[in-house]
Formats: sequence, C-alpha cells, structure tokens
Amino acid sequence: MADPFPREVYVVGAGMTAFGRHEGRRAAELGQEAVRAALHDAGVDYSAVEIAYCGHVLQGTTAGQKVLYGVGMTGIPIFNVENACASGTSALRAAAMAVGSGMVKVALAVGFEAMGRGAIPTRGDERLESVGHVGVPALPALFAGLFLEHSRRYGTTVEQMAMVSVKNRGYGAKNPRAQYHDPVTIDEVLASREVAPPLRLLMCCPTTSGAAAAVLASADVARGTRRPVRIVASVLQSDPALGGGDALAGITEINTRAMRTAYEQAGIGPDQLSCAEVHDCFSIAEIVHYENLGLCARGEGGRFIEQGLARARVRVSTSGGLLAKGHPLGATGVAQVVEAVEQLRGESEERQVPNARVALTHCQGFGGAAGVHIFAA
Amino acid sequence: MADPFPREVYVVGAGMTAFGRHEGRRAAELGQEAVRAALHDAGVDYSAVEIAYCGHVLQGTTAGQKVLYGVGMTGIPIFNVENACASGTSALRAAAMAVGSGMVKVALAVGFEAMGRGAIPTRGDERLESVGHVGVPALPALFAGLFLEHSRRYGTTVEQMAMVSVKNRGYGAKNPRAQYHDPVTIDEVLASREVAPPLRLLMCCPTTSGAAAAVLASADVARGTRRPVRIVASVLQSDPALGGGDALAGITEINTRAMRTAYEQAGIGPDQLSCAEVHDCFSIAEIVHYENLGLCARGEGGRFIEQGLARARVRVSTSGGLLAKGHPLGATGVAQVVEAVEQLRGESEERQVPNARVALTHCQGFGGAAGVHIFAA
Repeated sequence: MADPFPREVYVVGAGMTAFGRHEGRRAAELGQEAVRAALHDAGVDYSAVEIAYCGHVLQGTTAGQKVLYGVGMTGIPIFNVENACASGTSALRAAAMAVGSGMVKVALAVGFEAMGRGAIPTRGDERLESVGHVGVPALPALFAGLFLEHSRRYGTTVEQMAMVSVKNRGYGAKNPRAQYHDPVTIDEVLASREVAPPLRLLMCCPTTSGAAAAVLASADVARGTRRPVRIVASVLQSDPALGGGDALAGITEINTRAMRTAYEQAGIGPDQLSCAEVHDCFSIAEIVHYENLGLCARGEGGRFIEQGLARARVRVSTSGGLLAKGHPLGATGVAQVVEAVEQLRGESEERQVPNARVALTHCQGFGGAAGVHIFAA
Repeated sequence: MADPFPREVYVVGAGMTAFGRHEGRRAAELGQEAVRAALHDAGVDYSAVEIAYCGHVLQGTTAGQKVLYGVGMTGIPIFNVENACASGTSALRAAAMAVGSGMVKVALAVGFEAMGRGAIPTRGDERLESVGHVGVPALPALFAGLFLEHSRRYGTTVEQMAMVSVKNRGYGAKNPRAQYHDPVTIDEVLASREVAPPLRLLMCCPTTSGAAAAVLASADVARGTRRPVRIVASVLQSDPALGGGDALAGITEINTRAMRTAYEQAGIGPDQLSCAEVHDCFSIAEIVHYENLGLCARGEGGRFIEQGLARARVRVSTSGGLLAKGHPLGATGVAQVVEAVEQLRGESEERQVPNARVALTHCQGFGGAAGVHIFAA
C-alpha cells in the first residue's frame, strides 16, 4: 500500500472511556482516562509526546489543556481543534500529518465531550438541543428530509432504516464500552417515539459523554511497541461545492470525495475493506454512506442493509456506531480508531471480524468537514 | 539565521480588516475581507491554497468554513483552531508547520472574531463578560493582582502602567486600522474609570471585532511573489508547570520559555529585534513581557517603559497593540503578522521603524498557550 504522507505513520496505542451519560463527570476527567489508556496501550510515557491535538465542540477554548495538564506538565504545543462532529477526526488528521511530515516522532490525538445534563442546556434526552446550541440546524429534521428524498429517488424504506438500527444495536450489545447494551428488534425501532417524522428515536444517536485517545508514532518508534497499526490513508475534506439546499447532494459530494481520495492514498478499493466505522448519526446516514463508501451502487444503500451485506460483505459499525456506542461529538472520530485498531489486532472478542486486515473510519461534521482514515494490520 | 522547520517558510501575503466595533457585520464577512486582502497582497489565487487554519473563539465550531466558502469552494481541509486569545497565533503556527514540513506549498492562516453587542452576551463595554463567557476567569482582576505582586516585588507603579497605554495609543493614532485613533495622556489614563483597582479602563484592551489573514508559502512559491518575509521562529508553548496560584510566576514561565525557544530557533537575541508586537491585553502584561522577552532584566519592566526604551531600544506594539488597535480574540495573533510584515517591508508609514530587519510577534491565551514568531526581512 502507498502512504498518505512522506513518512509512515502508525497508531501505537489507542484507548477510550466507556461511552454513556457519565453524570457528574467532567470532560477533563474523561479525557485523562482515555489518554492514560492510550499511553498504557502504547507502552509510551507522556513525556515522549511532542505535540497534541484535542478535538471537542462544547468544552471551551482551552479544554485540551485542562485534560493534558492532568497527565503531565511538559509544555508541548496543544491545539484545540474543532469541526463539529468531525472534531475528533480532524485532531487525528492533524496528528497524523505532524508525524507523517517528519516534524515529530510521537503525536497525540484526543477527543472528548461531556454532554451530561449539567454540561449544556438540553431538553430531556434529545441530543438536538445541544447540537442546536453550537449553531447546527436541527439535525433530525434535516436527516428526515434526506430520507424522504432518498426514498423518493430510490425507494428506500423506513424499515430499511430500522434494520440499520437493529444491526448497530446488535453490535453495541457486544461492545462493553457502548452506551446501549440491549439489542432491539425492527418492531421496537418502528414503535419508538417519533422525533422528526419519519425518523424514530431509535434511528437517532443518543446524548453521550466520553473520550478517546490515540498515540501516533513514526516507524522507528513503532518498532518498539506492542502491536502498531499503520495509517495508509488520512483525508480531511471540506465541501467541494455548495449543495444549493439539496441535503442529499451535499452529503454525497463531500463524503464521496473524501472516500475516493482515501482509497487512492491507500491504493485499495472498497472490496478490500474488512470493516468500517461510518458516521451513522442517523440510520439514514449509514445507508447513504454505504453508497458514498462505494460498498454498493448509488441508490442501493437500502437494499444493501436489507440483504444483510452490511454485516457480511463489509462489517459496518462493529463498535455499535454512533447509534449504539453513542456520539460524544469530539470523541467520536478518535473512538472509531480504537475500534479499527482492536479489530486489526484481533482483540474485538465477540464482535471480532474474522481475519481483519484493513479498517476504515469515516466521520462527518455538518458545516463542512468529512474525514476518512484507512488502517492496515 | 536558522530555520524552525526542515523547509523555509515565507509570509507571501498578509491582510486585515480595520479593527473596531463593526456593529452588524458578521464574522464571515470580516474574515472574507481579510482573506481577500491577504491573497491580493500575495498575488496568489485562493485555488493555490492547499490547507487552511482558522483561529477564533466565539464564532462556532465550523466558523472557518463559513468564512472560506465565501472565497472559494475548493474542498481543502479546513481546521478550526482554538486556544483562547492565542487562537490566531495557533492557526499561524499550524500553517507554518504545514509548509515548513514540506506537506504543502501554500497554507492559509486566518483569525477572526465578531464581538459586537449582538454576537455574545456583554454588559456595556466590558470585554470581560465575553471572556468570562468562554470559561476564562475575570481577567482584569487577575491582571490587577499580577500588577500588585509585580509592584510589591519590584516597585512597579500605576504611572508606569499608564505610560504603556500612552505609548500604544500614540502608535494607534498612526495606524489607520486601529480601533482608537486618539492619543491619550498619563493623566487621562489615570482619570479613566476603575475596572479592577488599580487597573483603569484605558489600561485594558477594548471589545473589538475584526479579522486578519496570512498566506504562507514555500521558498519556490515565495520567489514568484512581490515581497516575501521569512519566518525564522515559530513556537507554541503550553504551561511548563502549574504556577500554584501565583499568576506572575505562571505568566513568566510560559512566555519566557516560548520566547527563549524562539530566539534559539532564529539564532538571534533580543538585541537584534527591530520591533515586537506583544500581548498587551492589559498594560501590566506588556511590562511583564518586556522582561519575558529579554528586553530588560527581570523586574525592570516598569523602568523600561519609564525610560522610553519601549520606543527606542526595541519598538514595542507599533500597531497600537491590543490596547489601541483592539483585540478581536482569534484575529489578534494573525493581525500581529500584518504589522510585522509591513514593518519589514518598510510599508508602515507614520509608525515605520527605521531600517526594520527583524520583527517578533507574541500572543498569550489564558488557559495554556503562548505563541512566538520571528520574521526576517
């Protein structure tokens, strides 16, 4: 495989907190738990980290420092990176670039978010309120519209959306760090509360707190670590065109472009993926991303899940995805790396993809950021 | 001079809006004006920009996209970078690293902030409210305490603080883009309203909106541009130690370390500086930074301004600084580059430093970020 950078980049350690409500726990505490887990996994001391990128949305302008000062006072440059729901993947991309360019040998990417009731104004369980708070338009309504358009063009059904939820909740039940551990049935999804018709509650990701971290390193450092995983593609894409109010065109363009670039960097095609974490903030998003990812033809996303191909041809969202594992905005892009690394190491236990060789992660931040990374064992 | 990066980095274009209240103007509009000015100055088209870093604090998680989509839809990676009042300098450092590592040939650093009454909850004219809003403790009180400690140890006087304000308002009067164009006297400063005793209103930077941008490029691109300025030091430092509640020790440690590293990178000492933009958010801050910068010995900052050395030995804050030019949080670090570039090109008109050869910029974000850059003609 090719490399996205002049020098090879490896994930030498990855770690995360459990995802969930974490009532009363602060972002800094969650972030520190994840960073310590990633450093421990790498067998690397914090003093070796030369630069850090911290992805978050709601935590304040120097939240990264609040996390890392609890781990060590080394004076390294700390960047707080924001890109809506792609903040974590943006931190990852920046860290990968720091190592891949040869500027540093060890970089840290951290993502974290405390979204408990105390952290931000929320109404009941609806994640929306918090997202609305940071300037994103009411997302369920947007994705409901996106479903209606996809359905009109391609015949995608509400039941197919429910099947995505069932699959991801099933995977979540096998992931001890997921927010939801109970599988659900299609009937249960269809009977859950309407959020933005025809989207039901179980087709929407929950309000979640949590953190994840990844230690990235150069080839020479990686050689001394337990089980490094190579980054063979690293892409961050902003909108290539204004969709002109056509949400489906918008979500297609930015993500398809990002994924195509990632495949080019890695020198592979979708057929060679063992598993993929995609940005399933809503069930319809995952369906559209099957197509963007090239797992199926345009318009075939609904049939792809219905035919069981999202747990056969390529295993999608084996962590439970945003729908079941949860979606602590800034943490998501880095937590996807934890799943990719564990799958490629064969450490995913009940949800292990047999003989996993290549894993992809994909994150989208509304407002103009799509990130794709590909990892190889 | 040495280089801070494996490859040379040049500022090939810099531009900014006027700083001021800009009632009713949105951040995106201000940012676009600055970006277009910087591109025009460089003679470079936006399509040549390969990556962009956008520094801001209060503008929302994908505010950088809102700025840049108005300039062009090219799909380049856009990172929103936050580090409190050092957000702009952090964006600059990230862009410099992208070019200096050889990853890209042209990178853009943008800083912007709309702090008009409509943008954020403020009370009257007090900038504090807005800073408090992003999680920083009431800053004037902190700097008042810092003055009291500096005065207790070294005999620094309230009059010496007023002299800093007088100098910077004098420079501001010569900068058409400064928020304040009227010089003030020591008596006027001392008669202005008390904000946090003994700090008076004219010893505090105002509430400001504005934007600035810098186009950074590799040596080969720079050769084709009008008048490139080389970056010979680029440092971002987080806290090297927790000050243990001693604000003066804290502000000394982080900034002294950043400045020492910058001098090492550039292979020069403070004697070789022609001019310096320092983070004079409060007049006492500038006094302490004379010392941190090595312009005078520890404890001599008050006497340095009193003896007129801050407009003789090294010209400090010739743009008017944060006190007179204004301080639109994320814009500040990039606007300092505009001053450095114009001084080194001999384009600063009434406030031109004769035969300026080396310029330094320094920015501090409370919460753990100090950025120093050195530029050479």
